Amino acid sequence: VEQSDQQALTELLENLHAADIADLLEQVDAGDRARLIRLYDREFDGEILSELDESIREEVIETLNPLVLADAVREMESDDVVDLLEDLEVPQQEAILEALEDADRVAVEQSLSYPENSAGRLMQREVVMAPEHWNVGQAIDYMRNSEDLPDQFYHVVLVDPRLHPIGNVTLGRIMATKREVPLTELVEDTFQVIPADQDEEDVAYAFNQYHLISAPVTDGEGRLVGVITIDDAMIVQDEEHEEDILRLAGVGEESSLADRVIETTKRRFPWLAVNLVTAVLASLVIAQFEEIIAEFVALAVLMPIVASMGGNAGTQSLTVAVRAIATRDLTGSNVWRVIRREVLVGLVNGVIFAIVMGLVGLAWFGSPILGVVIAVAMVVNLVVAGLAGTVIPVLLEKAGIDPALASGAFVTTVTDVVGFFAFLGLAATVLL
Amino acid sequence: VEQSDQQALTELLENLHAADIADLLEQVDAGDRARLIRLYDREFDGEILSELDESIREEVIETLNPLVLADAVREMESDDVVDLLEDLEVPQQEAILEALEDADRVAVEQSLSYPENSAGRLMQREVVMAPEHWNVGQAIDYMRNSEDLPDQFYHVVLVDPRLHPIGNVTLGRIMATKREVPLTELVEDTFQVIPADQDEEDVAYAFNQYHLISAPVTDGEGRLVGVITIDDAMIVQDEEHEEDILRLAGVGEESSLADRVIETTKRRFPWLAVNLVTAVLASLVIAQFEEIIAEFVALAVLMPIVASMGGNAGTQSLTVAVRAIATRDLTGSNVWRVIRREVLVGLVNGVIFAIVMGLVGLAWFGSPILGVVIAVAMVVNLVVAGLAGTVIPVLLEKAGIDPALASGAFVTTVTDVVGFFAFLGLAATVLL
Repeated sequence: VEQSDQQALTELLENLHAADIADLLEQVDAGDRARLIRLYDREFDGEILSELDESIREEVIETLNPLVLADAVREMESDDVVDLLEDLEVPQQEAILEALEDADRVAVEQSLSYPENSAGRLMQREVVMAPEHWNVGQAIDYMRNSEDLPDQFYHVVLVDPRLHPIGNVTLGRIMATKREVPLTELVEDTFQVIPADQDEEDVAYAFNQYHLISAPVTDGEGRLVGVITIDDAMIVQDEEHEEDILRLAGVGEESSLADRVIETTKRRFPWLAVNLVTAVLASLVIAQFEEIIAEFVALAVLMPIVASMGGNAGTQSLTVAVRAIATRDLTGSNVWRVIRREVLVGLVNGVIFAIVMGLVGLAWFGSPILGVVIAVAMVVNLVVAGLAGTVIPVLLEKAGIDPALASGAFVTTVTDVVGFFAFLGLAATVLL
Repeated sequence: VEQSDQQALTELLENLHAADIADLLEQVDAGDRARLIRLYDREFDGEILSELDESIREEVIETLNPLVLADAVREMESDDVVDLLEDLEVPQQEAILEALEDADRVAVEQSLSYPENSAGRLMQREVVMAPEHWNVGQAIDYMRNSEDLPDQFYHVVLVDPRLHPIGNVTLGRIMATKREVPLTELVEDTFQVIPADQDEEDVAYAFNQYHLISAPVTDGEGRLVGVITIDDAMIVQDEEHEEDILRLAGVGEESSLADRVIETTKRRFPWLAVNLVTAVLASLVIAQFEEIIAEFVALAVLMPIVASMGGNAGTQSLTVAVRAIATRDLTGSNVWRVIRREVLVGLVNGVIFAIVMGLVGLAWFGSPILGVVIAVAMVVNLVVAGLAGTVIPVLLEKAGIDPALASGAFVTTVTDVVGFFAFLGLAATVLL
């Protein structure tokens, strides 16, 4: 491929799906990428752009011949163009908007007028609607005679005279039903209307919870302005999950393996900085007990175990809590029950590991007192871990802070500080 | 609601979606749940069962009046019954199978003959197919005259005479096209056939990657046996994500907030046990340096900082790697580039935090040598964290072990051991 053999390359890529070509472009390095694009230039498809990761999309757009780019964009559907444009710098945005035909440009500009990450950005504007009083025959005749049905649609949206959506009828039901049956008799049980300014996270939740296939989107006056389909919701769900996983690990919004060293370093830095503060706090606790450590060095050997077990148990609890908050399974009605459960789980595991570590401490250093100290500290820290791991995400959520982002730092601070303090404090009391 | 007022309860629940009723049942405690179910008995809907979490589904099934249960199950679609049955104990399974009509029972039993988590379990058996030589008019007439079209379908699957699927035509395109056009001219560009024994994780990947709406499922001879729709793929994707997040946090397969203390404790125990071994290993490293710690207690105060920073940086790298492996963005072609990047990121962040901690160490304990020691150990550990955080998940994947499950333990062992060893070893060399 790297022999600049344009013919062979074009043939090779021809059989690949746009998503796979995009993956290929993401996985080669920047030099190969530029060469690949220049070779493949004439065949370049708008869909490949949609599939590319943000971080290298800009790079690809800059490499592309502007004429090819304009062609590629003109072939795309309006919601894909919106998705493409919203991550670009203003000059690139304008160049692409100019390449569009007038009607498309207006549609794209209107979508861009909705807030970022809102339903209005996700929706496609092409909707098939029918007045509520129509019957199946009228709907079929209308669709059969219509010139510009969208490529993909699954429902006919019933609207009242003021264009308010009142029900969804699937194409399948229309196909299966006699001509004289009114459409209102065929509407689906589950029908959700989505306001254009709703957050896309809530949109994905509604699709997942109610197993929607498509849902009408309405403007501020409740009029139908577009439709969101399940494939868009699936992409949002995927992004939200990705974001949660990365935030829980303190990686920030990092979007791609293709990011460069300097960007990646910048994104990971803040979490490490927070962790440094946390770690120094824990060290300040240790520093209070310098004397006893100097006397009984075994304490220095054993103390990281208590902190580490607490940190892990806390991470378990907080992950469960963060997920349950995201899926809306953790609510006011069961929060106390969940807290009680986590504390009890911490207590049971705490007692088990206390016995194990007590025996290890005894066997290793031959000191029953040391065994008792580490056992008690273990129980205390695992109980605190269960408590903090649940209460902290819930409180952060109440305060309007994303619990996936911030819980980790708080919980490990608590388990480190409590772990060292319980272990060393107890040791100081008993041993001195 | 708890005043046993059946009338009021039924009215209240009537307007709720089955998924919301299921959520409600999950969030109340076991006693309220049983009372609720007995009150709501007569109206109980099969869909509510599908929406319930596995862990309390069995409990609900046991509480339900067997007659109500049989009614509820008879209303469900075949793939939902399969989903319900596969998690139940054998006697419960048989009771439900007996309640089904003969044809449905055979269909369900056939689906259950496919391996767990395979495409065969996911698919619905109701497919609308058409011979490849038909035109739009024939397809419309066939559908209009058919008695038993499925409730939800989006595509007509074209098949050759041996029932091998050869293309998908959307209902929308059929609606929009003249009667005399052959269906083969309308097939979608993207067409994926899914073998019935394919793992559901790969199915979800295909839907996500190629933006499929539905895909035909074939048996061992390549014959069409069913169809999987995007809503099922979305549920699988959601479960896979959930599993990844929970495994990364060492929570195991824990499925629900409704799990009891004892189950939860059992599920979390193994990871904590692994962590204990890890922590003890790290302590063994510390124990090698007891003498120098007894002499310079500042080392005991500062050593957790190096280990903690390494653990966090390692978690960042491994999370990115585990995600990239799951989304198939990390492959043989870019693994070296990603490793290089992670190591460089570790180096850059390492140098920054080395300077910060060097100064903190100097200021706190007034010892320039201590500052240099912690600085060097920090750089070493963050570079190792980046390396281990990428290499370990990749090797685990190659060895056929789920990297989400096992990477954490290995990586933190490496960063703990290297962190303590680098810091204390260097201190011993320089200070003694």
